[in-house]
Amino acid sequence: MKDMTEFADYEVGFDIPAKPGMKADEVQTPALVLDLDALERNIKKMGDYAKAHGMRHRVHGKMHKSVDVAKLQMELGGACGVCCQKVSEAEVFARGGITDVLVSNQVRDPLKIDRLARMPKLGARTICCVDDLANVSELSKAAETHGTEIECLVEIDCGAGRCGVTTTPAVVEIAKAIDAAPGLKFAGIQAYQGAMQHLDAYAERQEKTQIAIEMVVDAVEALKAVGLECDIVGGGGTGSYYFESKSNVFNELQCGSYAFMDADYGRILDENGNRIDEGEWENALFILTSVMSHAKADKAIVDAGLKAQSVDSGLPVIFGRTDVEYVKCSDEHGVVADPEGALKVNDKLRLVPGHCDPTCNVHDWYVGLRDGVVETVWPVSARGRAY
Amino acid sequence: MKDMTEFADYEVGFDIPAKPGMKADEVQTPALVLDLDALERNIKKMGDYAKAHGMRHRVHGKMHKSVDVAKLQMELGGACGVCCQKVSEAEVFARGGITDVLVSNQVRDPLKIDRLARMPKLGARTICCVDDLANVSELSKAAETHGTEIECLVEIDCGAGRCGVTTTPAVVEIAKAIDAAPGLKFAGIQAYQGAMQHLDAYAERQEKTQIAIEMVVDAVEALKAVGLECDIVGGGGTGSYYFESKSNVFNELQCGSYAFMDADYGRILDENGNRIDEGEWENALFILTSVMSHAKADKAIVDAGLKAQSVDSGLPVIFGRTDVEYVKCSDEHGVVADPEGALKVNDKLRLVPGHCDPTCNVHDWYVGLRDGVVETVWPVSARGRAY
Repeated sequence: MKDMTEFADYEVGFDIPAKPGMKADEVQTPALVLDLDALERNIKKMGDYAKAHGMRHRVHGKMHKSVDVAKLQMELGGACGVCCQKVSEAEVFARGGITDVLVSNQVRDPLKIDRLARMPKLGARTICCVDDLANVSELSKAAETHGTEIECLVEIDCGAGRCGVTTTPAVVEIAKAIDAAPGLKFAGIQAYQGAMQHLDAYAERQEKTQIAIEMVVDAVEALKAVGLECDIVGGGGTGSYYFESKSNVFNELQCGSYAFMDADYGRILDENGNRIDEGEWENALFILTSVMSHAKADKAIVDAGLKAQSVDSGLPVIFGRTDVEYVKCSDEHGVVADPEGALKVNDKLRLVPGHCDPTCNVHDWYVGLRDGVVETVWPVSARGRAY
Repeated sequence: MKDMTEFADYEVGFDIPAKPGMKADEVQTPALVLDLDALERNIKKMGDYAKAHGMRHRVHGKMHKSVDVAKLQMELGGACGVCCQKVSEAEVFARGGITDVLVSNQVRDPLKIDRLARMPKLGARTICCVDDLANVSELSKAAETHGTEIECLVEIDCGAGRCGVTTTPAVVEIAKAIDAAPGLKFAGIQAYQGAMQHLDAYAERQEKTQIAIEMVVDAVEALKAVGLECDIVGGGGTGSYYFESKSNVFNELQCGSYAFMDADYGRILDENGNRIDEGEWENALFILTSVMSHAKADKAIVDAGLKAQSVDSGLPVIFGRTDVEYVKCSDEHGVVADPEGALKVNDKLRLVPGHCDPTCNVHDWYVGLRDGVVETVWPVSARGRAY
């Protein structure tokens, strides 16, 4: 948590959207706001679930890019550490005091490999993914140069169609090379199926995850046969964690969006056919926006457009309102259909973003609210750390 | 232009993607890169056009959010000043030394109005738009409080369906109120038709602009009849500036995207049916990206995903290549179809972003390249200034 005195010189509306103690409706918009009660309940719930199912939870820090949220997930949700997608992002978490950091991605650029190899000196267990034999020697050389150890997971492409190898022999070949390479430690398998997390139907997600589980079981057994044990078998997201948890092969979850939720994830259905934002997870993240023009009777123009959110997964949804609808998004404006003329200038609305990850990435601050008052303002610590 | 010494403490790959003097292929990716030759040619060309047609050019700073680019547009392109969309953005330009700044938008929040009223103290002529009588007294009070002057344009909604009034009587009513209000100066009309800039067909854009021009002519004449002269009649974008320039009523252009270009604008057609990125404007802005995985023979995974760009107007296009295609975008990855296996790990590609404005807004730096070498690194000065 940030100390209020750190913001003493910051001007509200220029450097920062709010200061602790302000009322919620004084927050400068557009701004990301967190319902701290809902956030804490989500974090606690997932932490309890993981514990009850004997799983570690390595929370996905790429979603929120916040050291403060990651620490809350470790303290309140018992998370074992974080994963993230970029070395520059990992450095922010390591410098922020997170001591167990997985770059759940490939690191191939020479400078990025060098930086990764220096990360253990920041006090963090450093893990990355590998899907190419050539990368093993690159990582090994860098770790040797810096006298550090990089732990490596072999990444399996279990359906997402991005990085990762697709056959058990390829997994074994790379794992053996890691195990033999100075400066590296074979740590297990990365098998996150990102492409199916957002499928609406529970049965469809289950089917896709089952394919992943079978690939992983096959790989783990083949590794065991050559004497390689997996410390980490990691994967699982907000749309699938229950499948990995019951798989008897995965031991680490990597959920991110459960903590904040968004409109796109909210629409997927649970086992009983209910939307997951109606019971399973609460909306804790909102874009607070203000009406800035109402020159036409049936539409309100709000101040959150494309520079306050990403619409890759659809438009935002106005929280708690059925009488008004966010219907169009341009660079700095949102058009809200207001057929009954319910809104007036300076009214504030809470938008549930279509997709939380890239939306958080365009903001510098999270404004934490409780009981209508700003309790805390957290930096989006790794915002813009895309390299 | 930034002095290299300012970056002395910055670490490449953490604080900054490159330093002056580095080779283009050493730039840490993903990063925004500018082809400085192409940028300068675009800026000069639009400046010459405006001058030849007796128009002022108030460049749209909301596109690039960069004090350095704005200054280049003023020095090389003869721009009279900048427009932008937010008070926090305007402050950045004013503090950066731009002395003529229009917030081409409504300012309604009390704190934002107060900040706007203080802007003239930063040495900048301060102009904003108004579409509501109530706003006139709000602005007037704030200007009086701070002993400053805010110039006001009445905004006409000439088809974009966002802010702005739609009738001449409404324009006249608000203009008279501005003229009578202490601390305010009636400065003219804002009439930007944003919704049609991206229509492909030239004739269709011309037709829509003609509607705007007729509304503006009517308003200007009605204002003249009550003794109000328009110092500024502003509008026009990259897809329409030739229409406003020949209208005999507009006197200020507000083009933005012409300087950088993007894939969505590039597709629109000029008078002769040619794409505007094939002759009229050059692509000067690119997302430099690297191949980071090629575990599957026919697809390369690159490191620029949704956190390095906005895909609201479509996927990016790979510049200068027809053998490979960017086909899918997720948070941190792009999938590039590579049917011939032409790419290898660490190969770099230049992506033309689908939409430049929100893409620039997720980056902290522009890396300026000339002859394959980093010549300058400019901050995206107003990045994240969305409030």
